[in-house]
Order: sequence, then structure tokens, then C-alpha cells
Amino acid sequence: METVTKAAPVRVSFDTSPERYRHWKLSTEGPIATLSMDVREDAGLSSDYRLKLNSYDLGVDIELADAIQRIRFEHPEVRAVIITSLKERIFCAGANIFMLRGSSHAWKVNFCKFTNETRLAIEDASGNSGLKFLAALNGICAGGGYELALACDEIFLVDDGNSAVSLPETPLLGVLPGTGGLTRVVDKRRVRRDLADVFGTVAEGVKGRRAVEWRLVDAVYPTSQFMERVTKRAQELAAGSDRPAAAQGIRLRPLTPQVTDDAIRYSSVSLEIDRDKRVARLTVTGPDAQEPSTPDEIQQAGDRFWPLRAFRELDDVLLRLRIHEPLIGTVVVRTEGDPASVLAVDDTLLKHQDHWLVREIIHFAKRTLKRMDLTSRTFFALIEPGSCFAGTLFELAIAADRAYMLDDPEKPSTIALSGMNGGPLKMSNGLTRLETRFLGEPDRVGTLLSHGKPFDPQQAFEAGLVSFAPDELDWEDEVRLAIESRASLSPDALTGMEANLRFAGPETMETKIFGRLTAWQNWIFQRPNAVGDKGALTTYGSQSRPEFDYNRT
Amino acid sequence: METVTKAAPVRVSFDTSPERYRHWKLSTEGPIATLSMDVREDAGLSSDYRLKLNSYDLGVDIELADAIQRIRFEHPEVRAVIITSLKERIFCAGANIFMLRGSSHAWKVNFCKFTNETRLAIEDASGNSGLKFLAALNGICAGGGYELALACDEIFLVDDGNSAVSLPETPLLGVLPGTGGLTRVVDKRRVRRDLADVFGTVAEGVKGRRAVEWRLVDAVYPTSQFMERVTKRAQELAAGSDRPAAAQGIRLRPLTPQVTDDAIRYSSVSLEIDRDKRVARLTVTGPDAQEPSTPDEIQQAGDRFWPLRAFRELDDVLLRLRIHEPLIGTVVVRTEGDPASVLAVDDTLLKHQDHWLVREIIHFAKRTLKRMDLTSRTFFALIEPGSCFAGTLFELAIAADRAYMLDDPEKPSTIALSGMNGGPLKMSNGLTRLETRFLGEPDRVGTLLSHGKPFDPQQAFEAGLVSFAPDELDWEDEVRLAIESRASLSPDALTGMEANLRFAGPETMETKIFGRLTAWQNWIFQRPNAVGDKGALTTYGSQSRPEFDYNRT
Repeated sequence: METVTKAAPVRVSFDTSPERYRHWKLSTEGPIATLSMDVREDAGLSSDYRLKLNSYDLGVDIELADAIQRIRFEHPEVRAVIITSLKERIFCAGANIFMLRGSSHAWKVNFCKFTNETRLAIEDASGNSGLKFLAALNGICAGGGYELALACDEIFLVDDGNSAVSLPETPLLGVLPGTGGLTRVVDKRRVRRDLADVFGTVAEGVKGRRAVEWRLVDAVYPTSQFMERVTKRAQELAAGSDRPAAAQGIRLRPLTPQVTDDAIRYSSVSLEIDRDKRVARLTVTGPDAQEPSTPDEIQQAGDRFWPLRAFRELDDVLLRLRIHEPLIGTVVVRTEGDPASVLAVDDTLLKHQDHWLVREIIHFAKRTLKRMDLTSRTFFALIEPGSCFAGTLFELAIAADRAYMLDDPEKPSTIALSGMNGGPLKMSNGLTRLETRFLGEPDRVGTLLSHGKPFDPQQAFEAGLVSFAPDELDWEDEVRLAIESRASLSPDALTGMEANLRFAGPETMETKIFGRLTAWQNWIFQRPNAVGDKGALTTYGSQSRPEFDYNRT
Repeated sequence: METVTKAAPVRVSFDTSPERYRHWKLSTEGPIATLSMDVREDAGLSSDYRLKLNSYDLGVDIELADAIQRIRFEHPEVRAVIITSLKERIFCAGANIFMLRGSSHAWKVNFCKFTNETRLAIEDASGNSGLKFLAALNGICAGGGYELALACDEIFLVDDGNSAVSLPETPLLGVLPGTGGLTRVVDKRRVRRDLADVFGTVAEGVKGRRAVEWRLVDAVYPTSQFMERVTKRAQELAAGSDRPAAAQGIRLRPLTPQVTDDAIRYSSVSLEIDRDKRVARLTVTGPDAQEPSTPDEIQQAGDRFWPLRAFRELDDVLLRLRIHEPLIGTVVVRTEGDPASVLAVDDTLLKHQDHWLVREIIHFAKRTLKRMDLTSRTFFALIEPGSCFAGTLFELAIAADRAYMLDDPEKPSTIALSGMNGGPLKMSNGLTRLETRFLGEPDRVGTLLSHGKPFDPQQAFEAGLVSFAPDELDWEDEVRLAIESRASLSPDALTGMEANLRFAGPETMETKIFGRLTAWQNWIFQRPNAVGDKGALTTYGSQSRPEFDYNRT
């Protein structure tokens, strides 16, 4: 009964800001921010469902992602964030089931991917940015609600005899707690797997002392003391932060791309779409020669500082591509500009990486590149004369599935590495992209990083930094054939292949969420026992009960 | 066009032996065994397809698995194994496509699981048993054929201007090289991920010098020198083995279970099936008081020695359960016998673990327990009076999703640990089951292992070794409700949940194959672009070309 098959229910915008939030309230008081969920039932992205009981759809999560981002950039004084709800006795009922039921497979997958990225952004802020997150569960906390809590550093549950945490996806809906739930329960909270098995099958969840004993929450407090105790703990956690008390945040202003039928153009990023060929051309323009080079100048430039501006644009265009352009299977990645200017900005970033704002910018670039790793489109980088695949922008070339570099002696093109390729932009597997690329030759990474000058096409090819370096006679045909051939293959097989090859090397909790958990969830999202006419997701909340094909696969 | 929906095309038997092989020849010459593929086209498990070009179905792989097993137990003098083909210019064309096309989803999944386990058994023999494997690719080597080569320690390809290695699954069939192919290319061979991307999309594959440069094979040799060079290398590898030159192997005789409609009974293992409830009862009987205790006695007892006998029976029953009883979703695991006798056998195993045969027995028990971890059925262990969940058999209780222990002071039951719980029976994630269980309290593992005496129900519960310890008043209801409730849930959601919770902790190449790669493959195996009327798997080899829905998910 998948009635909605359109890719997106509406033209979703990822642009929002606190004064426009419909579902969240963000307030700060000194070092403590409070992010309160108060979902407007009638303000879902589609009118096909109502967001009851603080259940959420993508629109709600876009606001959450925005709030986390703004706390990092606009509120350097904040050191701890309490995530709670303004609804009485309800924290959050999880992802809206009627939204899920009415969504296409692709929408479900994209929705889960974005919500997973948002929760990982919380953990990224905690791990790298001196922010600690406390989930203050003031009432029922089910499914995605508990998965949001799991992304926080500490979880507190009100002890009112009624409020429980639960993952009812499997018993009620026949799907998985796929927003990191299963993974974080055993790998982050380190709940014993047999207790996690019980927890994952008991719709009513676990409350009170047992929730603490099973490590599902850190503490339970009576209603009368609840917010006081949580706030006290927030203050304790805030005390350990290295965020600057007196710094001034910068404002993240709306992006204002020029959007036409077949192009999206920002100040430093553009996407041109060729629908007939199902190919898009993504171009990132490098910085001007005169970018800020001190923290004061960077602070003053704010969101106009090139790396922040360019990566905000790249982030936005990747999200638009995912949601609005499902037929574009291949993205040709290009850069334009002066490699020396990119390297100069890299120098600035590296020199001041301990400054709170520079730190935020670097981690944001890192998260954007991870978003690219997780985007289920083929990326081919084309390195041509006039390009600036250097340092941070060279990451685009090795985040891509392949890189082609034109070897034309008449029109030389080069690539270059910087310290930004050596650590700050780690992939979700915990390695740099160079380390992942050279798993088989780990010593080569250090050699290449100390090369100290640009690589010409032959050097780049021999160093293994590009896949192919055709000469000017072969270039056009070779690149065209590669793109055409790619566009002819099964898009599902490519999605699966890329999801495997891109994550060579070690797995982390983060990669397990997108690898093991998401892949299984996507399988279940295809199964009649979940989404068929009589599947559990379809029949939930209706008069009829699910009917399962009980064969185990 | 999935026309075959029965669970298994025929009543598959996992029992075979070299003299009955139809598809492989096993020969040994001193320390070198040669395992030659020579698939009989007309001897597939079903007459719906012909096994052309050394393509394989489950029947072919059952013989391969048997051969690997017999080399370990029956041929201790063998130190290197050459895997090659007797067909001219053809090594192996991979899994038979017409078999895959005609198979149900469940059959595809089970087939891939078994073939993956077989390839991992090759790597287990290499890693733990002093056997080295050489893939001698004497001709075309495609898809599953190359995946078999990838499981070997070294890969040699004939340089005849024609023979190539290839993974054509994505370009030709719209599926993944799911028998470890994608994972081993980047994680074992450590092929650069951009080159792996090219390799994975080029149907004709890669040959000659480029195959070496890309790390896809270790060397190429001209036809005239091919077997001589490979044999020479096999002798070199054999020289480094610690296998005994003069030892006598033991014979693995056929298992002869008594099979009825609702039960399979072996000497130490039985499975009783309640089809109405979709529940089976698996009982393992412990050893007699008088088991062999020296290597000589063990050698003399051969396949009658309890741990080998019991785990061979357990392995066989798990395979039958997977293939023939898809409707049985829950398995209640019980043991019967004297815990002291199990612990005595464990003592013997530990004391002589360096003896070649004891080593083989321990690793076989380990692999069988891994087979249980990977069996997509719920396991609940019931620990009752008269049971013997001690040492090696306690692994069954913690491999299970939950363990219930009856706390009846009138009829005491106990559990016990041994050194076998402390290392020899590691899971595929590289940890022991105790370590995985206590990820959150790593110190507890050592404390429990040094406990030195049995745990009564309250002690076991407090130690976290069992999930619940109901008293005699609650026992029956609690266990019955747990089983009934489990049987009512979506089988797909349970498969996904268990595949996530059971593999808490680190991932390894092995777990990535079953987690990331298999889960994506199973998703693709559900997608119309692969298995729909116009999907690539359906149309391959027919007049019509595949038609894809090009939306990317």
C-alpha cells in the first residue's frame, strides 16, 4: 500500500533558523542551552499526517540539525545542551508512523539517513567541540525519541511510575530502530546484548530502576526534582568544557542560491543538471587570494569566510541532490580556482585550528565530506587545467569514486596536498581519506604528505593519487565513456557497491550505523512483512492486525 | 519472475565425501593437496539449470566445504592446498546465474551465507591450522570464481592473453559480488578503492600485468610455466607450516541421524520441531564420564570423541534447520548431562590444544558456534536441572539471544565457566562471547573466568551470565510467554535485530562480509532492478535487455 511514490512530498528546504522554528524552542542561559521539542501537530511537511505526541518528520529534524549547528557557531559560550520537551508527560514518540507508511522507499531511506547524520552531529559536537548533551526525558520516550536520547552524552528519565524508554519498532511496526538505536544500545551504552534483545521486543519499554540497571538511562529522578537535577548535572558537565566564555558567535545567514530548472548556483558552488544523461556537474570555486588569515579577521568575515561559505553551500547542494534529484545517478566533481589560494586558506585553518571558530569550520567541512561519502550517487572527479584540487579541496577528489586527471603538457594541471589531508578531515571509519586509499601501503601516506610541492599528472598517477591520467587525445572519449557506462548500470547495485567500497578499512560505531544497521533496515523496508498490504507498518493504528509470512530469511 | 518459491529446490544433504564428489577432485601428494574444480553440468541440485563453465550451485559448494574439512582432519600431512580447475581455459564462472534467477529470496540468502562460510573456513584453516591456499587460475575467473580465489592466501593467474579475473555482478546482473568479493578486494587484498570501483564495473575484468599492479592477483605466469611456478610456491608455503608430517589423520564418517517428520536425532544432538508453534527444541547431550584424555586416546576415538561428534551433529542440524525449516523461527536450546564431564573434556582440550587434532576439534567447535551466531533464528537457552551448560556448552547459552535459568532451591541447576570461555572459541568479531557480552564491564570477564566453581541461579543472574532466573512458580509462564511472544513478531524484523545485536563491538573483515556486504546484497535481492520481470538478474542471457528504474536510493 505504498501510495506515495513521489520522491519528496513537497519541495523541502533545509534552510531554517530559530525564529522560524515551528517544532523546537532554543534558549540559552549562560553556558547552558535548552532545546525543547514542542512539535506542532499540524505543521508536518505533508498534510497527510499529523505530528501527534511530539512525533517527527524530516521538517522537525531539519530544525534540530539547524539548532545544533547554530549552537556551535552562534553560541560559543554554550557548553552543555539539555534536550527536552515542552509537552507534558511526553518527550517524543519517535518518527511519525503515518509519515513513514505513506512514504516511498527512497524517502524512507533519505529520511533515515538525514536523521542519522543529525544524531551523529550531536556526537561530533560532544567529541570535538566541547559541548555536552543531556537528554532530559520528561515523559514517554519511544523509538526515534529514545534514539535521539542515545545520541546524547547522558540520559535522564523522569521517575513518575509511567514514563519509560522504549524501542517498539520491532514489536509494533515490524521494522528496526534504524536511527542508530540498535547500534548505540549495544555499542555506545554497552547494554548487554541479551537485555538489548528483551528491550528491543518489549513495546512498553523499560522504566525506573531497571532502566538504570540495564544501562538504558544514566539516572531516574522524581518529577519534583527532575529539571533541577538535570540542570545541576549540565552545569557540572559545562565546567569541563574548553569553549570560550567571552567569545562572540558568528551569524549563519541564509544561503541564497539561484535555482533554475537545471541548475543551483551559490557563491562558490554550482550544480548543473543534465537530466537526459542523468548526470550533474558539481563545481566548487576556490577562495580569493585575499582571505582572512587571523582569528580576528575570520571572526569578522563570519559566514563569508570561504571554507565555511563553500562547505555550507556544498552541504546544502548535496542535501538537495539527495532529496530532489533521485534520477541523477552520477555527479562529475570539478573545481575552479588557484590551488595556491586553497593552500593558503589551509595554512590559516591549520595554524589556528585551536581557535573555537576555526575548529568549528574544520569540523563542519569534515561533516560535509562525510555527507558526500554517504550520498548514494557516483562521484567522478575531473582534474583539468584551471582546477584547484589542493589540500581541503583535494578531499573531493579522493572522496569521489574515481578521479581522472588530464595529462596535457600544453595545459598543465596539478594537484597538491596539505596538512588538511593528514588528519583534520577524517572519514567516519576513523581514518583519513589518504589512509583509507592506501590501506595496502600505509607508509605511502606520510611520504606523499611530505612531498611539499604540487604533483603533475604523471606524478599524481604514479603516486596513486588519481585513478587515470589520460592524455589530451584520449581525455574526452575516456571520460565520456566512463560517465555513460556508469549511467547505464543498475542504480541499486551501484548504491550497494559504493556503500561497500567507500568504507574500506575499520568500522566504527558510526560506520556500523550506516553499514550494518541501515542496510538491514533498507532490506526490511522492502519486505512485505513491513510494507505490504498486511505488513506491520501498513496496518499499525488501523483496525486490522498485521499478517506475517513467518518464513525466516 | 521469481517462479520458484519453495524454500529448497530439493532435499539437500550436507553429507558427502571425496569418493562421492561429482564436481571436485581432491588429490594429495605429500604436503601438497590439489583441489580441482570440474563441475558436472548435468549434476546441479535442480534440473532447471545446467552448471556450465564450472559455475556452481549449493551442491558444488557443499563438496568444497567438505573437502576443506577433510584436509584438516583426514590429511594432517597436507600443508598447502592448490585450488584449480580441470577445465581448459576456465577456472570458474561463479555462481550459476540461472540457479540464482530461479531461486526464492530465502534460497539466495541461504546459498550466499553457506558459500561465505565456506570461504571463511578456508581463511580459518590458513589463519589457525597451518594450511596455506593458492588459487591457480588457469583460465577465466569470474564473479564467485574470483571470490573463491580471494579467500586463498595467494592468487596466480595464467598469462595467456585472454584469462582475466572479474567481478561482473554489478555490470551484468545488477547485484553485488556478495560472497565477500567487495569486502576482500578492499579489505584483504587492499586494492585501492578507486581501482576497485573500476574493477567492479568492468564486466570483462582485468588481466595480465594490470591485475598484478592493481593487487588483484599476486602474479601472472605464462601457460607453459604456470603449474610449475604455482607448485613451487606451494612448496615454499608448505615449508613454513607447523602441521605434523608423520601424523595419521582421522576419518570423518557420515552422520546417521534418525530423521522423522518432526525430529532429527543424532547421538548427542536432537531437534524436535513443533510446527504449530513454529518452535524447535534443540538438545545437546554432554559427554560420558569416560572420554579420552590423551592425544593418543583422542586420535583413536576419532570422530567418536564427544566434542567432535557433538559439534559435527550441531553443525549439521543448524544447516538443516536453515534450509529445510524456514518456518521455525525460535529455537529453544537445552543441554542434558553432567557439567563435570563437560569440564573434564574442556580440560583435555585445553591441555592438548597444541596437538594438531585437538586444535582442529577446537576450531571446528568455534566455527560451528559462529554458524549459530549467523543463523537467522531466535535462540533462547533454557537452563534447568539436569543440564550441563558448562565451559564449551555454556557458549550455547551466551550465543543464544537470551538465557533463562530456573531458580528452584529444590532442584538446583548450575552453570560453570572454563578456559574454553576465555579465548579458544572467539566470535567473528574477534572477541570471546563473554567479552562481547560484557563490553560495558570488561573487567568482569576476568573475574568470572577465575570464579573457579559453579554458579547457582542467583549467582549466575547477579553475575550477568543469564538474562533471567525465574523461580519455580514463575518459570513455566515466563518461558512460555517469552517464546509465544517471540513467535508472534515479524520474522524479518527479528532477523535484522538479531543481526545487529549479536555483533556488538568491533567489526572485522569477517563480520563486514555478513553485516555490511550481505545486508546490502539482501536489499538488492529484493529490488525490481535485479529480480523484477525486467531486472538484470531476470533478463541475463535472454533476448531482452534489463530495464532499470534509474532512481537512486
